[in-house]
Amino acid sequence: MKTLNVNLGQRSYPIYIGPNLIGEPEFYDRHIHSSQVMVVTNQTVAPLYLGRVLANLAGRQIAQVILTDGESYKTMASAMQIFDELLSRKFSRNATLIALGGGVIGDLAGFSAACYQRGIPFMQIPTTLLAQVDSSVGGKTAVNHPLGKNMIGAFYQPQCVLADTSLLNTLPDRELSAGLAEVIKYGLIRDAQFFSWLEDNIEALLMRDAEALAHAIERSCANKAEVVAADERETGERATLNLGHTFGHAIETGMGYGVFLHGEAVAIGMCQAADLSRRLGWLNDDDVSRIEHILQRCRLPTTPPTNLDADRFLELMAVDKKNVDGKLRLILLEEIGRATLPVSVDVDTLRSTLETGSRK
Amino acid sequence: MKTLNVNLGQRSYPIYIGPNLIGEPEFYDRHIHSSQVMVVTNQTVAPLYLGRVLANLAGRQIAQVILTDGESYKTMASAMQIFDELLSRKFSRNATLIALGGGVIGDLAGFSAACYQRGIPFMQIPTTLLAQVDSSVGGKTAVNHPLGKNMIGAFYQPQCVLADTSLLNTLPDRELSAGLAEVIKYGLIRDAQFFSWLEDNIEALLMRDAEALAHAIERSCANKAEVVAADERETGERATLNLGHTFGHAIETGMGYGVFLHGEAVAIGMCQAADLSRRLGWLNDDDVSRIEHILQRCRLPTTPPTNLDADRFLELMAVDKKNVDGKLRLILLEEIGRATLPVSVDVDTLRSTLETGSRK
Repeated sequence: MKTLNVNLGQRSYPIYIGPNLIGEPEFYDRHIHSSQVMVVTNQTVAPLYLGRVLANLAGRQIAQVILTDGESYKTMASAMQIFDELLSRKFSRNATLIALGGGVIGDLAGFSAACYQRGIPFMQIPTTLLAQVDSSVGGKTAVNHPLGKNMIGAFYQPQCVLADTSLLNTLPDRELSAGLAEVIKYGLIRDAQFFSWLEDNIEALLMRDAEALAHAIERSCANKAEVVAADERETGERATLNLGHTFGHAIETGMGYGVFLHGEAVAIGMCQAADLSRRLGWLNDDDVSRIEHILQRCRLPTTPPTNLDADRFLELMAVDKKNVDGKLRLILLEEIGRATLPVSVDVDTLRSTLETGSRK
Repeated sequence: MKTLNVNLGQRSYPIYIGPNLIGEPEFYDRHIHSSQVMVVTNQTVAPLYLGRVLANLAGRQIAQVILTDGESYKTMASAMQIFDELLSRKFSRNATLIALGGGVIGDLAGFSAACYQRGIPFMQIPTTLLAQVDSSVGGKTAVNHPLGKNMIGAFYQPQCVLADTSLLNTLPDRELSAGLAEVIKYGLIRDAQFFSWLEDNIEALLMRDAEALAHAIERSCANKAEVVAADERETGERATLNLGHTFGHAIETGMGYGVFLHGEAVAIGMCQAADLSRRLGWLNDDDVSRIEHILQRCRLPTTPPTNLDADRFLELMAVDKKNVDGKLRLILLEEIGRATLPVSVDVDTLRSTLETGSRK
């Protein structure tokens, strides 16, 4: 087992990475300091793993909220369901909330923990690759609004994260690939060596080779942890984590949540960001091909849906929260392994990329 | 005009205290760094002061949400109304939110600002004495839940607070008195000299003497700012600000929000805390009388409603968020001007106080 520490002063926390972690009582005993524990999970994950988590919590007062699976349940209504249960069970501000699930559960449960009585401790047990490398690290929590993803949320840190690689054995292929999109992102934005390693090992990852997965999770989390530790509230380098996300959010919103997985939309968005970076003279054709190729090997989409034309894209991107005072600012690539800070992009150049993409 | 600084490192902010502040453009220009501004207020305050605030915001993109007045609108539904408006107007994460109103508006708008896109800047213009001395200082924001007050919230600091004493000229007598309950609280918990000053000047305050009000607001804010600066997240001394509040919240919840004003419920709660402090040998009969007397001179209630018996009180207090793991912990007084940290209270002694109170 590997332990990574995310350094945030008083709010620092460890990420444990390795096989069979959820069955180890020591993690729960070390990080839960209350007799009241609520587990938030969903109907897909509960039959697989809830019992194994609860087995470590004997003697405590347990509450559970089991939501229907899916991004469409990452709403304030679901958060209210959690608050209702916490209050009707008279859970105090010392109660611990455990998020057992993918990014939707982590974001929703984290936001609920941030707001319940102005903040109760919570513990993350991410069950997807995407959540293990991305949404469980960095303290971003949120629910969606009909007019935009993650529009209501909080920065809030967990007590710890258990990134149990054994949980990935039950993950559908499509979700594994979506998680790899975010893994590849870390190589692209700040770790050229890791990107090369991924090019050499992508087949092993797709075959769920345990050692390769552990390395990929560790490098991704380490990269993200370094960025977050340096910039907790996203005023500087942290924005680079959004490579491909402004495009990706537009795709998710435009198509309706659930049509594309988040990682799939980000894969397309990274290709669009790469194309734009090539137009600005930073990447060459070969760089763009390497990026598209590794994503294609993961069976990820690399071009936007044909029914989102450039005008619709621009409209959808205008409400994204990276938009500051009417100027569209995007994260691009100076080279593979080095992202820009947000740069203001000329609308005509952006339009060229959007039109090229949808014509491919 | 006086300026008090609340020292919270990067999140420090000034409180400006004095007459006719809302008409001064310099405060808005100094603290609003975006072209998008939303004002959240209510139907009582809007006709009196909204125009004067908006007059200072010419040239900016303005949105406004005007809620029905009252604690019953301090809900997640109202927060959602604010989010809907911010998103439909495509307001970015740099937009500034102005809270123009009493504690309900301040808490609700502050919570909405804390959550919108994980936090946008906000400015407080409290229009009641209670909000000026209490809810605008310290970063506590929240909405109510049917099962308890302030159960969903965040710690979030404003850019600045304008405590404009001229706004108090339109405040109903009953609300002025409710605000004085919190002013008196600051004397009780940590400032015996201020408590004596209040005993000497309570009539001037009730007659809205401008100089007396400014002094009372300044001393209250200074006391609260010192406590908050020392203990932002309420792990130590800050808990003393809750003197009377566990009782008070039980009264508000038990009677239904809106029957008692918050300050009225706290006035009763402070008398109950004083009675309990006497039973534990800390206060003498004379101390308790001084406390009851000054509250009575403000025409504040000092005994609980007869239909809340001891059993009902105990039940209501069990869900209060100061309740840690089943033990009831209360702030009491060691003497006038010195509060205890939360102390575990024997249920029989507590019951004696609750029974005495309701029989008076």
